[in-house]
Amino acid sequence: MPDYRKIFSTPAILIIQPIIDLVAICAKKGIEHAILSPGSRCAPLTLAFVRHPDIHARTISDERSAAFIALGMAQQLEKPVALVCTSGSAALNYYPAVAEAFFQQIPLLILTADRPPEWIDQWDGQTIYQQEVYGKHVKKSFQFPDDFSNPDKVWHAARIANEAINLAQQFPAGPVHINIPLREPFYPSSEEKFEFPDSPREFTAVHSHTELSPDSLEHIKNRLLNVKRLMIVPGQQKPDSQIQGLLDDLIKKQHVVVVADTISNIQGKNSISLHDHWLGNEQLQAELAPDLVISFGKSVISKSLKQFLRKQEISHWHIQPDGQSKDTYQHLTRILACTPSGFLNWLSKNLPVQSFEFARQWNRLEEKVGTALPEVMDQVGFGEYAALHLVLKKIPTLSKIHLANSMAVRYVNFLGKRTQEICCNRGTSGIDGSTSTAVGCTFTTKEPVSLITGDMAFFYDRNAFWHNYPMNNLRVIILNNHAGGIFRIIEGPASQPELEEFFETKQSLNAKSLAAEFGFEYSKAESKEELRTALEKFYSSSIHPKILEIFSESASNLQILKDVKKKINKLISEV
Amino acid sequence: MPDYRKIFSTPAILIIQPIIDLVAICAKKGIEHAILSPGSRCAPLTLAFVRHPDIHARTISDERSAAFIALGMAQQLEKPVALVCTSGSAALNYYPAVAEAFFQQIPLLILTADRPPEWIDQWDGQTIYQQEVYGKHVKKSFQFPDDFSNPDKVWHAARIANEAINLAQQFPAGPVHINIPLREPFYPSSEEKFEFPDSPREFTAVHSHTELSPDSLEHIKNRLLNVKRLMIVPGQQKPDSQIQGLLDDLIKKQHVVVVADTISNIQGKNSISLHDHWLGNEQLQAELAPDLVISFGKSVISKSLKQFLRKQEISHWHIQPDGQSKDTYQHLTRILACTPSGFLNWLSKNLPVQSFEFARQWNRLEEKVGTALPEVMDQVGFGEYAALHLVLKKIPTLSKIHLANSMAVRYVNFLGKRTQEICCNRGTSGIDGSTSTAVGCTFTTKEPVSLITGDMAFFYDRNAFWHNYPMNNLRVIILNNHAGGIFRIIEGPASQPELEEFFETKQSLNAKSLAAEFGFEYSKAESKEELRTALEKFYSSSIHPKILEIFSESASNLQILKDVKKKINKLISEV
Repeated sequence: MPDYRKIFSTPAILIIQPIIDLVAICAKKGIEHAILSPGSRCAPLTLAFVRHPDIHARTISDERSAAFIALGMAQQLEKPVALVCTSGSAALNYYPAVAEAFFQQIPLLILTADRPPEWIDQWDGQTIYQQEVYGKHVKKSFQFPDDFSNPDKVWHAARIANEAINLAQQFPAGPVHINIPLREPFYPSSEEKFEFPDSPREFTAVHSHTELSPDSLEHIKNRLLNVKRLMIVPGQQKPDSQIQGLLDDLIKKQHVVVVADTISNIQGKNSISLHDHWLGNEQLQAELAPDLVISFGKSVISKSLKQFLRKQEISHWHIQPDGQSKDTYQHLTRILACTPSGFLNWLSKNLPVQSFEFARQWNRLEEKVGTALPEVMDQVGFGEYAALHLVLKKIPTLSKIHLANSMAVRYVNFLGKRTQEICCNRGTSGIDGSTSTAVGCTFTTKEPVSLITGDMAFFYDRNAFWHNYPMNNLRVIILNNHAGGIFRIIEGPASQPELEEFFETKQSLNAKSLAAEFGFEYSKAESKEELRTALEKFYSSSIHPKILEIFSESASNLQILKDVKKKINKLISEV
Repeated sequence: MPDYRKIFSTPAILIIQPIIDLVAICAKKGIEHAILSPGSRCAPLTLAFVRHPDIHARTISDERSAAFIALGMAQQLEKPVALVCTSGSAALNYYPAVAEAFFQQIPLLILTADRPPEWIDQWDGQTIYQQEVYGKHVKKSFQFPDDFSNPDKVWHAARIANEAINLAQQFPAGPVHINIPLREPFYPSSEEKFEFPDSPREFTAVHSHTELSPDSLEHIKNRLLNVKRLMIVPGQQKPDSQIQGLLDDLIKKQHVVVVADTISNIQGKNSISLHDHWLGNEQLQAELAPDLVISFGKSVISKSLKQFLRKQEISHWHIQPDGQSKDTYQHLTRILACTPSGFLNWLSKNLPVQSFEFARQWNRLEEKVGTALPEVMDQVGFGEYAALHLVLKKIPTLSKIHLANSMAVRYVNFLGKRTQEICCNRGTSGIDGSTSTAVGCTFTTKEPVSLITGDMAFFYDRNAFWHNYPMNNLRVIILNNHAGGIFRIIEGPASQPELEEFFETKQSLNAKSLAAEFGFEYSKAESKEELRTALEKFYSSSIHPKILEIFSESASNLQILKDVKKKINKLISEV
């Protein structure tokens, strides 16, 4: 048989040039940041991203953190960040962040170098089954051509790059995967030129939006004539001044009740934010029940809100431009395939004025609890709850707050409206990447980035700091109770003998030595006084990130939660 | 419509009992260890594993480490270890270890708690698409029933448990996944009994093996009449005294050449282990070329061996009981679907005596290099290579050595035969879980467990230590060159200007503060003298694990490798 090796012997540049072109397309389509992880198989990608003049490339060695860092950047930039890893299990370490990006609808362009197909599963080197490896957790997965002997392959490669980047950004945004098989040589020889093409092929996705038809709107308008108690529930979203303004108007003019968790980033004066304090109170539920709920955005954090709405006899309309159904409250009756701002704008012109009494009930509770809560917080003993009340007052108005899952996001939700942008990985609600996500955020802004986290989430993701890039605007507040305190607070595990070892999972670390290891400034607090002192200079500028570790006991945190609840309940029953 | 909730209201025990039964089946089928991670959705699994009298359960908070720890245990025990995690991204953090277990053929029983199907993708809590989430990297993925209103579901559940555990152990062993949807309540009320069934349903897989037919053997026997230069290449496997004995006989009586990497755990006096030192030498290749290669086991570490065999005109027979084809050397001509020991036994009775000259060539090289190498090592400057030469001499004869990927496993392979059991994650060849795998090993033995690792692999997987279980027999030897030194040693990246930042990825950590944080004994060495001193008491018993950190420079390590190569090449050309 002919010796194909001799006939088709490939100079390095024929392997590397399609990768150079791919990166040129990334840059042309607006990708400005890449997070790389070390590897040899991915070397052509590494070289092209590092050498492109319009792309800022960073390298992060733990791929799990790398992917969450990219997610934290893309969350802020609202455009794709490229992720590059070598072949093998590297791609699998991306997966937790890929799933989070999918459900949180954050654009990522995931480029995984792979062995060429003929070498898969032959017991040779770093090889797994990488094609389609992210299953349903990417918008699409592409297989890049593995040779370019036919010119159609060049067309195919450029098409993949364009489609992938377009798709990552189209609503709902999300991760897109290109698996890239590469043969040696991975490095250009010294005679070979490494040149980006002047005009790489591009096709753009022209921005569009969906609208409800006039007939549908007429029908909806008639339906709204019967609605007296409209509640709007915004789910997780970025701060949006247009939506904010429309909601403010609807509250003011039409007496709509807007119930907004902290992750919705709705900050208007007249929306409801303290609902977690009273929605568990069964006696109040009848008078608070809406007849129609309109929701938009992504998930809601408040379990009591979800349980309250699931129990009522309501209709639920969900606004979602792509028409997917999410029946969070088990009463979904209508999917409105249009933009939230478009529909809210129409609503502000077509919704009859709602029951004043309905709005009054909600507003009185919000006001009563809002006035009492700071006093209650001042009275209760020192613990996570009171500590966060103090911390939140000190966080600069214009800044970003990242909340870890489990208790951090719940406490902040209990404490009401914020002026800062609130970020939290509520796509999969894992504790695995909160720190890395916050670190990624620091790469995109000079504003302070505060991470409020528990000891479990913090130590889980400590490799977030294992790199050489400055993140001096990072401020980490750790609620260290040496355990997963949430397991004492939810009822089931608290009554089991296995509570401490297998649910709370006692852990003995504190962050002091970690701070020393990474050169962070460190302070700690075990009382309100220590905390006030520590907070005084916590937000002063610094060349190093700062950690403030707040120690408390799981058992007394539970007692404080109960005390606060009792006091608030007493107050409410006096309304 | 009828109120299904009232009709079908389920007492907790009806949700929990099938899980109790599942765990009883695990115990009956010989599972003795479970690695749990904290969570509420998985609480029924947690309680059942912790409460079963015949199962030892431990909890590890970082699921990535948890899964590698389970892998490290199952690797030693050669039977499945159960892994239990909660719903959401927890399951994804298992994935790197799942893929490693798949390719390294290690049995794992992966139990992922899930939300019930109706709650998937409804923006509620820790929810991803968990069914089939490990793709092609598990032997099979099962979906556990989500209610037991029909008695056939009870039969189904017991069948799944039995099939999954049987399958995990059948050749080739590997990970099997059961996804378990669970509804609240997850915890038994105080009145409910938590009782394991006396005789849970069991069906066993009776042990069997495949044999070649008499006709095939006759054919093969005839074919062997033409073979004069037989080389046997064992791939990665556990130490096996039967195979060892058969190979020793074949070498002695039939002049077969056995070329055995360190991960093959072949330790016989007369096999070849130093081949990496001469197989790059093109002048020698003609006289060393076999006419037939017979391989068994899994992968081979030596790149020069693979390249050497790929270049020759040889036949290659691969022994593999399940008949899968792995064409590692690109010359596969026959797959022998039988056990290696069975075939080697037959071979020892049917193989004609091979060329004495062929065996002599190999043996002379082995002897020459084997004699010279210790002297060369004593002469070269201090660095990773010489340090490991010293370290290996001190490791107790009967013990386990875990090698991290990248340079650690390569250096040890260069240094020849060992008496200890060698473990290395060569399934996917990742650096991600080497430490956790070694920690898992310590849970199964009282012998010393040595981990030889680089700084990148070590810090990547530092959460291996984040738990409350003793591992006092662990000895960690870190080769800290503050970078991924392998990138300087392989040729491509070393000539790129991006070498230090993007390939080696300079990192500044050392293990001293980590050792203090976790309460480990710590010593370091920057010279042969310091190393000798540090080694004196390194293997004395201790209540804490010990870390010995060896510092060296990436650039001088490269120089030493070159020096050794030069000296050995000179020696070889004198043969």
